Amino acid sequence: MNVERKFARLATDNAPGQEGRQTAGGLDGLLRGAPLPGRPVDFSHGDVDAHEPTPGASDQFAQGVAAGGRQAYTEYRGDGAIREQVAAHLADFTGVPVDADDGMIVTPGTQGALFLAVAATVGRGDKVAIVQPDYFANRKLVEFFEGEMIPVQLDYEAAGEDRAGLNLDQLEQAFRQGAKVFVFSNPNNPAGVVYSAGEIGQIAALAGRYGATVIVDQLYSRLRFGGVTYTHLRAGQIDPANVITIMGPSKTESLSGYRLGVAFGAPAIIARMEKLQAIVSLRAAGYCQAVLRTWFAEPEGWMDERIRRHQAIRDDLVATLRGIEGAFARAPQAGSYLFPRLPALAVPHADFVRILRIQAGVVVTPGTEFSPHSGDCIRLNFSQDHQAAVAAVARLATLVERYRA
Amino acid sequence: MNVERKFARLATDNAPGQEGRQTAGGLDGLLRGAPLPGRPVDFSHGDVDAHEPTPGASDQFAQGVAAGGRQAYTEYRGDGAIREQVAAHLADFTGVPVDADDGMIVTPGTQGALFLAVAATVGRGDKVAIVQPDYFANRKLVEFFEGEMIPVQLDYEAAGEDRAGLNLDQLEQAFRQGAKVFVFSNPNNPAGVVYSAGEIGQIAALAGRYGATVIVDQLYSRLRFGGVTYTHLRAGQIDPANVITIMGPSKTESLSGYRLGVAFGAPAIIARMEKLQAIVSLRAAGYCQAVLRTWFAEPEGWMDERIRRHQAIRDDLVATLRGIEGAFARAPQAGSYLFPRLPALAVPHADFVRILRIQAGVVVTPGTEFSPHSGDCIRLNFSQDHQAAVAAVARLATLVERYRA
Repeated sequence: MNVERKFARLATDNAPGQEGRQTAGGLDGLLRGAPLPGRPVDFSHGDVDAHEPTPGASDQFAQGVAAGGRQAYTEYRGDGAIREQVAAHLADFTGVPVDADDGMIVTPGTQGALFLAVAATVGRGDKVAIVQPDYFANRKLVEFFEGEMIPVQLDYEAAGEDRAGLNLDQLEQAFRQGAKVFVFSNPNNPAGVVYSAGEIGQIAALAGRYGATVIVDQLYSRLRFGGVTYTHLRAGQIDPANVITIMGPSKTESLSGYRLGVAFGAPAIIARMEKLQAIVSLRAAGYCQAVLRTWFAEPEGWMDERIRRHQAIRDDLVATLRGIEGAFARAPQAGSYLFPRLPALAVPHADFVRILRIQAGVVVTPGTEFSPHSGDCIRLNFSQDHQAAVAAVARLATLVERYRA
Repeated sequence: MNVERKFARLATDNAPGQEGRQTAGGLDGLLRGAPLPGRPVDFSHGDVDAHEPTPGASDQFAQGVAAGGRQAYTEYRGDGAIREQVAAHLADFTGVPVDADDGMIVTPGTQGALFLAVAATVGRGDKVAIVQPDYFANRKLVEFFEGEMIPVQLDYEAAGEDRAGLNLDQLEQAFRQGAKVFVFSNPNNPAGVVYSAGEIGQIAALAGRYGATVIVDQLYSRLRFGGVTYTHLRAGQIDPANVITIMGPSKTESLSGYRLGVAFGAPAIIARMEKLQAIVSLRAAGYCQAVLRTWFAEPEGWMDERIRRHQAIRDDLVATLRGIEGAFARAPQAGSYLFPRLPALAVPHADFVRILRIQAGVVVTPGTEFSPHSGDCIRLNFSQDHQAAVAAVARLATLVERYRA
């Protein structure tokens, strides 16, 4: 594939955060009624002003600057002492040891980790199993490296509250067809569902049977509601040489402005990831790496309070969404995404998303970014100011009625 | 090419800054004499403790943090207001306008810009003209994207002081053979030479004649010695749709710990670069972007003093190196790299580089990272503490005598 075609496929027009580059063109004939007043809410990402960064983050950064050259120029895989500290926390969190020296890399955000992990495992023509719906970059990365995506459905709507709803038969079929890599997020982005112990066990068993590598994005795995049970893939019956786990403090901890992530697991894959990082961006910003010292070291009770506040927002928004006739909203078990399905509308859902921005000051991400089968869904990151979010979703509900088919 | 082979080619064992991951294995039989005492100097990169970051950098960072969400979540191509400010400075510096909205992207370091620029222009099998010697990542990036490198020699040793020494016949031949992209650094890394107005004019003319895209890495173009004339490729007779210029404040300004770079030029290429950045690392760390407000806005006289101090170090080190019988050292006209050629030694030069680290506490980068024809050269970043650098190069000279063939 030539470079022009490769980039033509790599659309970012509807990517979260890029709405500012869109125009309002073509909607004039569609608009119904007056704009709805209210504080604008950008649900495309979390509001770090409403949920502030971890206490002490900027102090740690300042200490990084004060440390000078040794903090500015770390190994490409990140500062050794910081890796040691983070590895110990991640071992506690996931239940099995993490090798700070050879089994871990610090990256510019979890996005950086995901990019390197896919690049390190997927070559041209390689088959890769990808969940639908799932984080849009998974698919785009496979396409960029000219892999072949084999979709696996996640039927989170029909599944009970006790499982995410992965179609395990389809996953096995993907492996049978030759998929050598499986990439998925847990909790799922966008649906907010958590894979059950049974589902994780079967993913591990299938990966083992077919010798596949699994890349699991656990970015939101600390923000869990109502005592949901979370199972770490890497802690189960899976060959450690075939798992890469990705996490980072950008979301729950609101540290996105520092661009920090980590990948940990199979040393052979981590080694490749570091080789590539050396020509992609050298390293996560050296001074920023120092902020990882706050991670898993938050003040007593801080995380509980963060979870409590998010759960309260979730509950209010889910109630409003469920009040829309014909809409479906499964309550997320973890993370800060809601992925409601809207009823039939008189305008295409893609246009409704733009109308919502123009008429109600509400930015959401269209479902098609996550799955071709999610065209009538929208994703909302509900890590927002509570009252503003409630009011914004009320405006959304009003507009749904205005445009109902 | 499968993913294993692709990564096997992407060696980083001798990459600057990765020396900590090397072992001393295999040298025992080769070592002659006792270790040479002295303060260790790591010439693989600049010492930001000896030459401190731009005044006000950390204040701007703190203001970025205080700005909150809007600074944390910028457009993927970087914050709009910061782009405006930087674009104005870059237009002044290079002599022609810079389009802040469509013709510029902020990246995680100039490395990030280089990665995105090569990715956006080089597909599998595309021919790419690469200078020898030049920054090692140029070659590695072409290899990673499965392009075909066509080397063009830079004979900086034979060239007079008034030109860099690019073999323009070879460059034309590369274009005739189908090279669609030419990547080079000016000033050259590692040799520190500046391309003359005539050379730049001919590069522009050849690129125009053959419709090739030129990516020029001007990372060190502010740190110029002795009134050398610097010619900006983008300001000459070249189709603006075919030039990408890369710069950043990591080196001269010692801001590497913030990981900031910019690419500016052809909007169609910048658009691709942003699409890719969206899946590589999203954006340069949002809070770090604020530090770009210090760039080209340094206190009166600050840059002059920085240049003066580097020129003084350069002069002392060149004198010492020229005192080694059989060595060759062209005085760099810009930047902070020295690339001396050493005389014949009794051990392979690759081993000598390791011996130098073990016996003298002097870290340098082997010439083979920059060209297969530079095996007897070493690169030193002389942005160091003046006295420590002078003493370290004296130890280097002592070891050359000890191991002389």
